[in-house]
Amino acid sequence: EASEAYVTLVTSRDYVRGALVLAHSLRKSKTTRPVVALASRDLPSLARSELMDVFDAVHIVEEMNSNDAVRLELLGRPELGVTFTKLRAWCLTEYEKCVFLDADTLVLKNIDDVFERDTNFAAAPDVGWPDCFNSGVFLFAPSQTTFSELVALAATTGSFDGGDQGLLNSYFKDWSTGSPAMRLPFTYNMTANPSYGYAPAFERFRDDIHVVHFIGAHKPWHGMPTPGPGMHGLVSLVDAWWRMHDD
Amino acid sequence: EASEAYVTLVTSRDYVRGALVLAHSLRKSKTTRPVVALASRDLPSLARSELMDVFDAVHIVEEMNSNDAVRLELLGRPELGVTFTKLRAWCLTEYEKCVFLDADTLVLKNIDDVFERDTNFAAAPDVGWPDCFNSGVFLFAPSQTTFSELVALAATTGSFDGGDQGLLNSYFKDWSTGSPAMRLPFTYNMTANPSYGYAPAFERFRDDIHVVHFIGAHKPWHGMPTPGPGMHGLVSLVDAWWRMHDD
Ligand SMILES: O=c1ccn([C@@H]2O[C@H](COP(=O)(O)OP(=O)(O)O)[C@@H](O)[C@H]2O)c(=O)[nH]1
Ligand SMILES: O=c1ccn([C@@H]2O[C@H](COP(=O)(O)OP(=O)(O)O)[C@@H](O)[C@H]2O)c(=O)[nH]1
Ligand SMILES: [Mn+2]
Ligand SMILES: [Mn+2]
Repeated sequence: EASEAYVTLVTSRDYVRGALVLAHSLRKSKTTRPVVALASRDLPSLARSELMDVFDAVHIVEEMNSNDAVRLELLGRPELGVTFTKLRAWCLTEYEKCVFLDADTLVLKNIDDVFERDTNFAAAPDVGWPDCFNSGVFLFAPSQTTFSELVALAATTGSFDGGDQGLLNSYFKDWSTGSPAMRLPFTYNMTANPSYGYAPAFERFRDDIHVVHFIGAHKPWHGMPTPGPGMHGLVSLVDAWWRMHDD
Repeated sequence: EASEAYVTLVTSRDYVRGALVLAHSLRKSKTTRPVVALASRDLPSLARSELMDVFDAVHIVEEMNSNDAVRLELLGRPELGVTFTKLRAWCLTEYEKCVFLDADTLVLKNIDDVFERDTNFAAAPDVGWPDCFNSGVFLFAPSQTTFSELVALAATTGSFDGGDQGLLNSYFKDWSTGSPAMRLPFTYNMTANPSYGYAPAFERFRDDIHVVHFIGAHKPWHGMPTPGPGMHGLVSLVDAWWRMHDD
């Protein structure tokens, strides 16, 4: 277990609050693994020291960017090119296995069992195109070789969405047809989107939700959302984020 | 191959147009299997004879209904209790394997390879809760035993969404963790929803779309939709439906 860790990424001040709440939620889940952050060198030093107060380790990394304005426009998120920095997580070779979590996720129940899976990669389906995985929560095995291959793929083919998710889905392209071990339950990355949902399934499985992921440009720390008709559960989830924040 | 078929369901006049276009699209895909319909006994005889002009066989069935107003309200589709009639497809024991297709689906490319899968059930993920499958397209093996078990489950536990999809997901509950053979590609049941989508993935995989499924209360035969920001491809898909209709 000493060689396993949870990892998140913070390249800008806006995501510091998310990362702090995430770390707090992991501790409350009674994880036995260290919680580490990748922080951009450009992050103001106050932000960096806030992270150091809470995380077990903060690794300073150089930012990477897809610089792919056209595809990011299609995604509707021009600011997400910088998520290529997520690839640096594969350089954490002091760990054998890590679980990456976006800074906009919140852990509600212990997920240490993910480390037990017999696979070098696992992720949960994306609600937008469910044969792709969502790259906000994933198990991975740090490796300089994998990192180099990802960077090479970024240079040759690029990412079909301009962010890390498109690139990672091209790299781990047998995810949807391969071993069930690679498939994390949706309850381990329950994407709370205000515009569409399947309310009866949410009611059916809500007690089993382990990780909530607040996808989209509007994050919980920006205030309360106006949920669409399908996603009546969103308000209570954002509320859970704020309770963790105030805790 | 003689003991394999495509099956759809029509309980009301409104879905006749969808079923006719679906049958036409299957024929254009050059399927080698017969195309059959389950038609409610209550369907007006004109509607029934329209179906008989186009389908290889029309089986008259008694309607079934979940009569679960509370959960259908949560689903936002009070009219869908009658989709329990879909369970009658398991009574088509003259066939060994069938592929069920909702009347609001459109086949763009041949999908006969689905019959080759070594499994008694296969379906594609639902975009609302992707550990559930969408019950608009599925491979199944007709069986009176399975039919009886489904009816018994409906009586004891009921359907968590009030329609056939909730019930079938409870019955085939190992779908998301089981054999990859049970997992149809999302391109075999590409749910075109106006409110949310992952536009870059749609662009990336659009040439591979085999079946489009027009989920939601607004069907192509009701006219052109106003697509939301994420689903810019919807208009061209509804257009494809109308081209098939006018063909
Ligand atoms: O300016 C940014 C944008 C993103 N991120 C990190 O990259 C992740 C992915 O971005 P985001 O969660 O906004 O994408 P979404 O989940 O909404 O697609 C974030 O959670 C952060 O960990 C960051 O540090 N700075
Ligand atoms: O009044 C109805 C409602 C549904 N259906 C059949 O049941 C399927 C499922 O309903 P629908 O496609 O409207 O559900 P959705 O895919 O929108 O969830 C339809 O495609 C039809 O084949 C029907 O025959 N009559
Ligand atoms: Mn995120
Ligand atoms: Mn349908």
